Amino acid sequence: MNPDSPCVTAGIAQSRDRRNLQSPDQSPDTVIQARVCDASRPCEHARMNFCSNCGQRVALATPPGDHLPRFVCASCGAIHYENPKIIAGCVPEYEGRILLCRRGIEPRLGFWTFPAGFMENGETVQQAAARESREESLAEVEIGSLLAVVHVLSARQVHMFFRARLPLASFGPTPESLEVGLFSEAEIPWGEIAFPSIEFALRRYFQDRAAGREDHHFTSVERRPPGIPLQPGKTHV
Amino acid sequence: MNPDSPCVTAGIAQSRDRRNLQSPDQSPDTVIQARVCDASRPCEHARMNFCSNCGQRVALATPPGDHLPRFVCASCGAIHYENPKIIAGCVPEYEGRILLCRRGIEPRLGFWTFPAGFMENGETVQQAAARESREESLAEVEIGSLLAVVHVLSARQVHMFFRARLPLASFGPTPESLEVGLFSEAEIPWGEIAFPSIEFALRRYFQDRAAGREDHHFTSVERRPPGIPLQPGKTHV
Repeated sequence: MNPDSPCVTAGIAQSRDRRNLQSPDQSPDTVIQARVCDASRPCEHARMNFCSNCGQRVALATPPGDHLPRFVCASCGAIHYENPKIIAGCVPEYEGRILLCRRGIEPRLGFWTFPAGFMENGETVQQAAARESREESLAEVEIGSLLAVVHVLSARQVHMFFRARLPLASFGPTPESLEVGLFSEAEIPWGEIAFPSIEFALRRYFQDRAAGREDHHFTSVERRPPGIPLQPGKTHV
Repeated sequence: MNPDSPCVTAGIAQSRDRRNLQSPDQSPDTVIQARVCDASRPCEHARMNFCSNCGQRVALATPPGDHLPRFVCASCGAIHYENPKIIAGCVPEYEGRILLCRRGIEPRLGFWTFPAGFMENGETVQQAAARESREESLAEVEIGSLLAVVHVLSARQVHMFFRARLPLASFGPTPESLEVGLFSEAEIPWGEIAFPSIEFALRRYFQDRAAGREDHHFTSVERRPPGIPLQPGKTHV
């Protein structure tokens, strides 16, 4: 699966990461049936062929009273809505240094990120961020203030990142992370950051820390190769 | 559909609102196949019988490397993840008064809320909040600062509410709202507020306004009948 392709049309993807950041299709191990979507805009209708209620074929149609096309089942009447998903993460700090993980899974294998991943049902955003830290780095963090909310429109995701405290320098590699380490601001591998939302949040983190404040920042980013400067949309403090 | 039942197990629901707040099932017009979930905790597995990729039966199973049960298709290997959805809304203010809508649709028909609804793919949270204002009240708002993030765990929702400015006193009823009006703080119908997340955000709004600040507030709430005092979990400013 090419995570830079907004429209997931066809392919066999093999990945150890079933919950990939910025991968709009969440079952990368499956064969996806071909479907052609409008390539000029983010595909909002990837991968629904059959009704999950009754098993019959679905078709795109705008339900009465609605304003957007949905996958609708003519057999049982079910309407299948698709909505953005939340990625929760945090920037853990220990004695002035930041915990980063080198990704052991696709996409962006080998690139650096702070712990983040898909929020699950039944947990708060903060609990999700703490869980992801545990899963990706074995670190037990204390979640702090809201740092950034980043819309990744083409991936149909909202990234919500928090400041965090790492009480103990206790962490290590996991099945999801090749390496885990602490970095001073000068040591951050800016050219090897996995995702633009991560870079945005890290830069705002250090800016705020230098200014002695804990603001939160909204922006929108698109997928891009690393190293290209961010062009955030609206930043709201 | 009883929105107070966390586990949607069976039933034929008829509602004009296909995008109901705090209704975990988003296709209320459909016949839902019976399935019994653990009633002691929020149901995270409502309504998936067939694989939306290949149309075969799915079953709950924990995939290798995962830590939670998912709906898995033994036929094509697809894993169907379910994640929280975002409700976006805003508190529009015009010359010190707040715009509220009396719901014209279930659930909570006849109760009051500020404009809010499901965020769609391809829009920011702020754009979603502005769109909902337009759809529910015909009001064109200017979205301001983040007011509240409310986890409604049993509904598998994260409510994100903003302050907003209503430049013109231009609004009116819609298919979703029986009445739309401006209320001073003293006029707010506290006993007739539709949802606890709305009440939480409104109370914080007025508290912050009185104090001359624009903080944001995190909390968790559960479904409840109106009139019962809120017992928010953690409030983070």
